[in-house]
Amino acid sequence: MPGPRTLHLNAFLYGVGHHSAAWRHPDSAAERIGDITYFEELARTAERGCLDAVFFADGHSVNPKYTAGTTWFLEPLTALSAMARATERIGLVTTVSASFFTPFHAARMLASLDHISGGRVGANIVTSMFDEEARNHGFDALPPHTERYARAEEFIEVLCALWDSWDDGGVLVDRTGGRFLDSDAIRPIRHRGKHFRVDGPLTVPRCPQGRPVLFQAGASETGRNLAARHAEAVYSVAWDITAALEYATDLRARIAAAGRDPGTVAILPGLVTYVGRSEEEAWAKKTELDALLDVDAAITQLGVFTGQDYTGHDLDAPVDDLPPIEEFTGPQGRYATVQRIIETRRPTLRGLLGYLAAGGGHATMIGTPESVADSIEEWFAAGACDGFNLMCPAYPDSLDDFVDLVVPELQRRGLFRTEYPGSTLRDSLGLKTV
Amino acid sequence: MPGPRTLHLNAFLYGVGHHSAAWRHPDSAAERIGDITYFEELARTAERGCLDAVFFADGHSVNPKYTAGTTWFLEPLTALSAMARATERIGLVTTVSASFFTPFHAARMLASLDHISGGRVGANIVTSMFDEEARNHGFDALPPHTERYARAEEFIEVLCALWDSWDDGGVLVDRTGGRFLDSDAIRPIRHRGKHFRVDGPLTVPRCPQGRPVLFQAGASETGRNLAARHAEAVYSVAWDITAALEYATDLRARIAAAGRDPGTVAILPGLVTYVGRSEEEAWAKKTELDALLDVDAAITQLGVFTGQDYTGHDLDAPVDDLPPIEEFTGPQGRYATVQRIIETRRPTLRGLLGYLAAGGGHATMIGTPESVADSIEEWFAAGACDGFNLMCPAYPDSLDDFVDLVVPELQRRGLFRTEYPGSTLRDSLGLKTV
Repeated sequence: MPGPRTLHLNAFLYGVGHHSAAWRHPDSAAERIGDITYFEELARTAERGCLDAVFFADGHSVNPKYTAGTTWFLEPLTALSAMARATERIGLVTTVSASFFTPFHAARMLASLDHISGGRVGANIVTSMFDEEARNHGFDALPPHTERYARAEEFIEVLCALWDSWDDGGVLVDRTGGRFLDSDAIRPIRHRGKHFRVDGPLTVPRCPQGRPVLFQAGASETGRNLAARHAEAVYSVAWDITAALEYATDLRARIAAAGRDPGTVAILPGLVTYVGRSEEEAWAKKTELDALLDVDAAITQLGVFTGQDYTGHDLDAPVDDLPPIEEFTGPQGRYATVQRIIETRRPTLRGLLGYLAAGGGHATMIGTPESVADSIEEWFAAGACDGFNLMCPAYPDSLDDFVDLVVPELQRRGLFRTEYPGSTLRDSLGLKTV
Repeated sequence: MPGPRTLHLNAFLYGVGHHSAAWRHPDSAAERIGDITYFEELARTAERGCLDAVFFADGHSVNPKYTAGTTWFLEPLTALSAMARATERIGLVTTVSASFFTPFHAARMLASLDHISGGRVGANIVTSMFDEEARNHGFDALPPHTERYARAEEFIEVLCALWDSWDDGGVLVDRTGGRFLDSDAIRPIRHRGKHFRVDGPLTVPRCPQGRPVLFQAGASETGRNLAARHAEAVYSVAWDITAALEYATDLRARIAAAGRDPGTVAILPGLVTYVGRSEEEAWAKKTELDALLDVDAAITQLGVFTGQDYTGHDLDAPVDDLPPIEEFTGPQGRYATVQRIIETRRPTLRGLLGYLAAGGGHATMIGTPESVADSIEEWFAAGACDGFNLMCPAYPDSLDDFVDLVVPELQRRGLFRTEYPGSTLRDSLGLKTV
């Protein structure tokens, strides 16, 4: 790795937590997930820990049968605008669907939010996943994967062109000369593509960061290539350091092949943490959440993932190894994840259900501040990642634990900042203002 | 008029003011029109005056040649979310284009903003006016007027259906029973129309106002009928009490014909005010802004409106009456407005240019707090309006003048509230929560 590297940490906000039973905890903030003050408090906690950013996923449909608190009650762009005014330095990353927004709407709102926040905006460009979402925006179903990604690529090109349609200094305010704008500094973009026709210029002057920071989260071949060409930070998934290193090595090669410097793209796998002052306290936090799971539903789902019937299995007894993956005819990815969890953690059945309920196949670290910091340091030093997108199992408590216990330990080791290096998200991520 | 009526007042925020030369004033906030704190301060001033709402217009294109500060630097939904958190009671009305948004995006963002603001959102549904805007959203040109209005009508129907797709109490949070949402209280809408296909339900639980308040601003035949069927408040244009009464009478008849109670729709013409502690001080404020006009450009524009050549006309000499309108072959509306301004105000040429530069044909009141309150009272008592959409010529000064000088006079007369009647915009407008 060239030059001194800095660890980057985002808090991936998600209802009352990434553990699907978190809302059932008596102390959970389930009643407050439509309350902007709840999210403002989380953002301030993350800022207290000098985290790079808060990060919102997004969805455009709701299933009323869901029992989990994972619905998208507040729309992220409006929520982040309020949160921008409740904080001063932390980045604000939202997920934007290239399948449902016109690029002009997206470029405009993100630029507006970048002005409102003083340069702290990032946009995680996705193509969306569910036909239910498409049916809320006029489609009968989602377009095929390849077409969605082609649209996303053009979407990103239009975003950048619109953000670049104003030079710095476009707002002249020459009272004497009577020129409010400098028309030489503002240009149409006249984009004519397969998916979009956009004349421009944007209505918003060049924003503090030049361009908001582009995030990407695609794991597929197409997604990785898109990230390689455009992303400045990547949210990825890896159960262990081996998988993370494999992904990072692959992505960095693609970035280099696309003619970019791999050192300028932060790779941030999701990370679920249970932190306690002792190992026992940390494990008790996981056990307490796992005990709230709807076990029958979770066992049914596990059966689908593995082709095994766990009905009647002792919840507190360890789970046996799965048969070799070659014998399984369903989707391989999920099967491999369950296989890996069983082999590396030797969980009880309820413990296994809990790993899957919080983050699925994402990295999960359980222990004291020291042991969690050890693992983070190990991943980081090995070059398996540039930091993590923290998927706290239960907000606000797990975030408090991370900020109050793990962050100071990382700071003691010189792995993490003790103050923000500047005022923008690009400053925090060590990216140039474009 | 049945029952006691209450005056309603909105502050129509518009860059640094509705006078097109306002930005050139040495004290203008022209450098701050991309600064959210500027708009937060304006909203707090309006709230200090107990105004019903702040009101944003919107546009989806920018002309770099514009010399005026009337560009849309901050996107209204993101700006209003920040402003919501800087205020407690004032309504927040934004303009939403039915031609460019999918109804799902609009319904979702407005509902989210209604949650964030605790029930203070209004949406002014428009069809947009310029081909330049359409060319930023994938069209070659705007669809024809009739088609735009048909789409807007369906757009409003979908908005309402989406807002109604959740009953109160849809968020159950039954920890013991394991039901986060009450699936009986959340329904798809399965809308299949000419312009939209939207399955629903919305992702956002029923918002504090049930539905955000619907504003409308159409003056055309089609626009009036749309307003009659759906609007809960109307932003209109009238130079004088006669024109206002004519419009209000016509609209109320249409509302009744649509089967609704005309008493439940607030008619709010635009109003430009220059207020001083003396008549002289008030006129000096107008004269000072008019002196900043680009006279050559304004005279050219006046020539287009009237077919007269004012080149070489003494700027400080009165303007003669125009020939009868029958002799003019151009657009009649603008001509009639100029004719009326000349006949009723007997302005100098520069004064006439100033009337047109601030609000065009909108009501313009110039004088002391008492005389302006007299005029407002006269319009209101005659049933020519239910209040006004204040088009301050120069922000923040003209808004300060109105709030500090005119509002107390209206309060002394018992015409305007001294505190907010409740916490939502519907409360302020005297509308039921739907």
